[in-house]
Amino acid sequence: MRNNTVKLLSTLLTLMFVHLAAGQPPASQLNLMPVPEKVELLAGKYRLDAGFTVRIAGAQSGRLVKGASRILDRLTGRTGLFLANPTSLLDASAPAAGMLLTAGRQGELAPLQDESYDLVITPDGIKMTAETDIGIIRGLETVLQLLDADENGYFFPAVRVHDKPRFPWRGLLIDAGRHFIPADIIRRNLDAMAAVKMNVLHWHLTEDQGFRIESKAFPKLHQLGSDGLYYTQAEIAGIVAYAGDRGIRVMPEFDLPGHATSWFVGYPELASAPGPYTIERKWGIFDPTFDPTREEIYQFLTTFFAEMATLFPDPCWHIGGDENKGHQWDANPEIQAFMRKNGLADNHALQNHFNMRLEKILDKLGKTMVGWYTDAPPELNKKYIIEVWKGREAMYDMVRRGYRSLLAYGFYIDLIQPTEYHYANDPIPVDSVLTEREKAMILGGEATMWAEFVGPETIDSRIWPRTAAIAERLWSQSEVKDVAEMFRRLAVVSVQLEELGLTHIKNFDMMLRRLAERHPVDELKRFVDVIEPMYTYSRDRPHVFKSHYPLTRVVDAALPDPPAAREFDLLVEGLIAGGKEQEECLKSLTIRLETLQADYPRLMETINGSPVLWEVRPLAEGLAVCTTIGLEALELVKKQQKPASAWIEIRLALLKKAQVPSGEAELLIAHSLEKLVKSMARPDSPPRK
Amino acid sequence: MRNNTVKLLSTLLTLMFVHLAAGQPPASQLNLMPVPEKVELLAGKYRLDAGFTVRIAGAQSGRLVKGASRILDRLTGRTGLFLANPTSLLDASAPAAGMLLTAGRQGELAPLQDESYDLVITPDGIKMTAETDIGIIRGLETVLQLLDADENGYFFPAVRVHDKPRFPWRGLLIDAGRHFIPADIIRRNLDAMAAVKMNVLHWHLTEDQGFRIESKAFPKLHQLGSDGLYYTQAEIAGIVAYAGDRGIRVMPEFDLPGHATSWFVGYPELASAPGPYTIERKWGIFDPTFDPTREEIYQFLTTFFAEMATLFPDPCWHIGGDENKGHQWDANPEIQAFMRKNGLADNHALQNHFNMRLEKILDKLGKTMVGWYTDAPPELNKKYIIEVWKGREAMYDMVRRGYRSLLAYGFYIDLIQPTEYHYANDPIPVDSVLTEREKAMILGGEATMWAEFVGPETIDSRIWPRTAAIAERLWSQSEVKDVAEMFRRLAVVSVQLEELGLTHIKNFDMMLRRLAERHPVDELKRFVDVIEPMYTYSRDRPHVFKSHYPLTRVVDAALPDPPAAREFDLLVEGLIAGGKEQEECLKSLTIRLETLQADYPRLMETINGSPVLWEVRPLAEGLAVCTTIGLEALELVKKQQKPASAWIEIRLALLKKAQVPSGEAELLIAHSLEKLVKSMARPDSPPRK
Repeated sequence: MRNNTVKLLSTLLTLMFVHLAAGQPPASQLNLMPVPEKVELLAGKYRLDAGFTVRIAGAQSGRLVKGASRILDRLTGRTGLFLANPTSLLDASAPAAGMLLTAGRQGELAPLQDESYDLVITPDGIKMTAETDIGIIRGLETVLQLLDADENGYFFPAVRVHDKPRFPWRGLLIDAGRHFIPADIIRRNLDAMAAVKMNVLHWHLTEDQGFRIESKAFPKLHQLGSDGLYYTQAEIAGIVAYAGDRGIRVMPEFDLPGHATSWFVGYPELASAPGPYTIERKWGIFDPTFDPTREEIYQFLTTFFAEMATLFPDPCWHIGGDENKGHQWDANPEIQAFMRKNGLADNHALQNHFNMRLEKILDKLGKTMVGWYTDAPPELNKKYIIEVWKGREAMYDMVRRGYRSLLAYGFYIDLIQPTEYHYANDPIPVDSVLTEREKAMILGGEATMWAEFVGPETIDSRIWPRTAAIAERLWSQSEVKDVAEMFRRLAVVSVQLEELGLTHIKNFDMMLRRLAERHPVDELKRFVDVIEPMYTYSRDRPHVFKSHYPLTRVVDAALPDPPAAREFDLLVEGLIAGGKEQEECLKSLTIRLETLQADYPRLMETINGSPVLWEVRPLAEGLAVCTTIGLEALELVKKQQKPASAWIEIRLALLKKAQVPSGEAELLIAHSLEKLVKSMARPDSPPRK
Repeated sequence: MRNNTVKLLSTLLTLMFVHLAAGQPPASQLNLMPVPEKVELLAGKYRLDAGFTVRIAGAQSGRLVKGASRILDRLTGRTGLFLANPTSLLDASAPAAGMLLTAGRQGELAPLQDESYDLVITPDGIKMTAETDIGIIRGLETVLQLLDADENGYFFPAVRVHDKPRFPWRGLLIDAGRHFIPADIIRRNLDAMAAVKMNVLHWHLTEDQGFRIESKAFPKLHQLGSDGLYYTQAEIAGIVAYAGDRGIRVMPEFDLPGHATSWFVGYPELASAPGPYTIERKWGIFDPTFDPTREEIYQFLTTFFAEMATLFPDPCWHIGGDENKGHQWDANPEIQAFMRKNGLADNHALQNHFNMRLEKILDKLGKTMVGWYTDAPPELNKKYIIEVWKGREAMYDMVRRGYRSLLAYGFYIDLIQPTEYHYANDPIPVDSVLTEREKAMILGGEATMWAEFVGPETIDSRIWPRTAAIAERLWSQSEVKDVAEMFRRLAVVSVQLEELGLTHIKNFDMMLRRLAERHPVDELKRFVDVIEPMYTYSRDRPHVFKSHYPLTRVVDAALPDPPAAREFDLLVEGLIAGGKEQEECLKSLTIRLETLQADYPRLMETINGSPVLWEVRPLAEGLAVCTTIGLEALELVKKQQKPASAWIEIRLALLKKAQVPSGEAELLIAHSLEKLVKSMARPDSPPRK
């Protein structure tokens, strides 16, 4: 059993069998996420009561006042204390404040800002200082995470924290192109980002399936390209301001020259083939591409980007730029002639030509261009920032060529991969051979929420809580990598995120109530608790998906990396490993399997009664097989009997069958039980107790 | 046992002990809410499959296209069917449609619109006709409620429906003044209103505690009067359009001349005393009042209302008008002089003077004035509509004087009263002595969501599902009043409302997770399931509440009219009544009480571990008393033993104590058990089995 697994298991068993002990935990046991650079526990506690007030000294800013008010609101919400009126915050005549915040200056919303802060809590109060107000905003989240309680009420442990981020760019991409994500959902995700100290919303706003920004200069863009689902300019301005209050930059992405069908619905003359165009309803890579040989498109983009610059003040703009297969270019004789005339050898050279034109337009607006990695390296101004989806080696190659880079590879949260996998995805591992200068060119990374299979009801549960682990990877030091510790803190943070309106936990039950439609729901919940959506790239079968298809099925309700299945797997590992925890693992697995087995009749009643559930009937039947095999295996372990090889063979074949996805979802415990049965075939099995 | 109770109990027991039988239910068993005027079941079923399409014939309107698209989305969401692309709706070349919608004309957003519709479903398809597109919008909700499933999949039962509302005005008041309610919450409540065929959002926008509309003419209104919590004009326009798409009128309320502190923060010169004014932080009736003797205020209001008229097209505007105690008028010598000079005998006469001026301003804008009932009858144009909070007799008095009226009395959902009570509140009971002409002047009624004790997290659960019962009272015929039937359908509709984003169910668990903070939550849930917030008018003690105080305590998580407590009470009634259900009641009560009793140790651990829960510790201790007494009593009933009178006396005293509210919440089962113990004192107790 790996070291991580031992720790994870021991944490799980502690939570299951022992109640949390009262009293002060060691610094390593605080619920801080991301873990600060330095934390030192001091003696004593600062008690929170209704008289608590905050004073803002030093540089004044609306961001600070609003940030402090929000923290007071959340403290009020968590504690139920009737705190003094937050509007008295800045009252100079107020008595000595419980929390004193001192920022040196107002931070700017630009890369490489100082986000550090120093926090000291003593029994007398809380004092925080920071170079910028953005540093204070980061530190306020730490204060909130330090809130604790004992038999006398709420308190903050006395502590000294010095903190700053490891990487300056800690982003979340939200793809509002493939499925529209309404403004209120963007806002609550900004709140969640702030809670884990992320600082860039990368807002993917245009796609083949939708053009999501109101344009007054070219109104047919949103009028014809969006099915009416777009952000008004007022909404965008509101969101950019909302993000700014939280010290979060908003980087828009206008995806060019491919991924551009929706632009051409209203303006077919921009494309490399005549059209007409309609909004794309399927997923994939499509042909419609800007025609880079015509001056008109640069005039169009100059006007359009000038309009967008009034909405998006961020100095970095993303122009997409990948996945252009050039089919429209190959088929257009005028484009071919242009290439010959201008000595452009291939489509790569033509795209470079386009990019260089774009860069000039953006440069005049004071914008640095950001683009997706492409196999052929760009030939641009070295200000260009490359976002890499292809692997760390590709990123190292880019920084060696002199381009600043962002890591998206390994943070593709749309793919439904384990939290642990994302957490381990360090942009610069300890054994990296990069020079210090090259390392400094790696700005950070971004969790990417591509939206083929998410909509307003499910997007939160695809982003959270896993993205909090990514946020920690990008903020905390490289040495912070204990997976058991991460999961312990993640569970706490996940519930705290709900106070911001996030629906990642509560929509699970809601979706199951709808699926069960008037039938009992408890058994269905325990069933879907051990189910996971398929790996996304395997999903687009047997259906060719379309953008308006339902996102309300079991595969949509099921959570990525579901805790119940993770726990089950851990218990199986503990059982296999033997040792002192074996007895507890055996006990807990038996209870879980017996419960699932007892659930079966009512579960099948619910499934049979609701046609939307019929597609997961094979998984429910697989569950019955799993519980039977699992309980048989546990009985053998209990009796320290070794099964016959025929028994093992048959069970493994049945478990393989139970692993076959259905309704695009799979039964995770079938994999765990396969491990268990396989372990019983080993000569040293069953392990001694 | 009352007839209603017998039915309720039998419905409950059916749900608990027998699974829903498959096959076609009688018309009375359909899940339609509100119940249509006429429903006739026909033979057969219309099967829904992925090829389902809709065609809009007759009058075309954006409202119809969007309405039909929404219904298709919701059908898709419920069934998981990959329905054809909704954008092909109006494709004239489409094959014969599964649903054909024919409206005679576009309906107007004004009182007394035709909202009737005729719906016929046969095995060949769905056909709906209506005088207006608003009628079609109403009927589409009926179609959706008819969706059912059997062993072959989804279907609509063949049916003929003729439907129209009993009252033309079926409103929901949302008070965004006392606590700001963000735009997305208003929108989802509009969706919920449409789902139960309500047609007026009465939007209470100005209060002592907040001025919630952006005014470009007088920007200090929202800038200084709202703490930054107001609707932008773009948001208001968006909401009015959103409502209009659903056939819902938006009537704004600008509360005058009292309830007006927030106006005076920016414009103290409008008030009857010099100021300065600050936003009011407490609840109650306050002195700041417009000065009706000064011409400037009429100029101000003329300009302001002209600006508002660009946002609120509805022909009816509410001007509040009640709860002005006139203290500022009494204290102002200039106002007193004005009254003497103009022969205005008292404050009532002065307010009438003010109202008559207002009426002229509104009349020029084409607006009919609506106002709250005051004890002194108004002396206005008979177009004036009076909303009555004082009782049905007051309303009858008003209609006899010639004023059209709305009933708010009995629909005050903020007060935390039983659904059954609101449902019985018929504006014109069968025994009414009003003439037909007088009856016609009763336009309908409004559920009023006053917001002293609700915020964004809790408002949905205070409005829904109870307001669906009010919607039925105002739409369905007077004869539709079977409470058991209402509760059966309400449970179905309540879950369906979740698909619109309503949080009335899911925020309960979420709030308890926060309250339990890292401690087990299941026992806490079963505990709060039998707790109810106190009657609101009794709540404002021992604290003087302020507007920023927390709305995250147990009293806020607890539901009005909680189903588990209602069921418990019903089972107690069944037990007391004896008869054939007694055995099942005994069995179910025993399980419930034993579960609650077993919960106690872990519940107390959770409460002790989380200081925000300490205020309900007395209720948890009361629960322990209740479970012990309850189980003792059940044991006696089982043994058919009569308790000693001392036993009864002591138990009643203990139960009285357990009924004492704590944390502004009360333990409902203590009341039910009191009934049980009291019944045991009767000579005929325990009843024979």
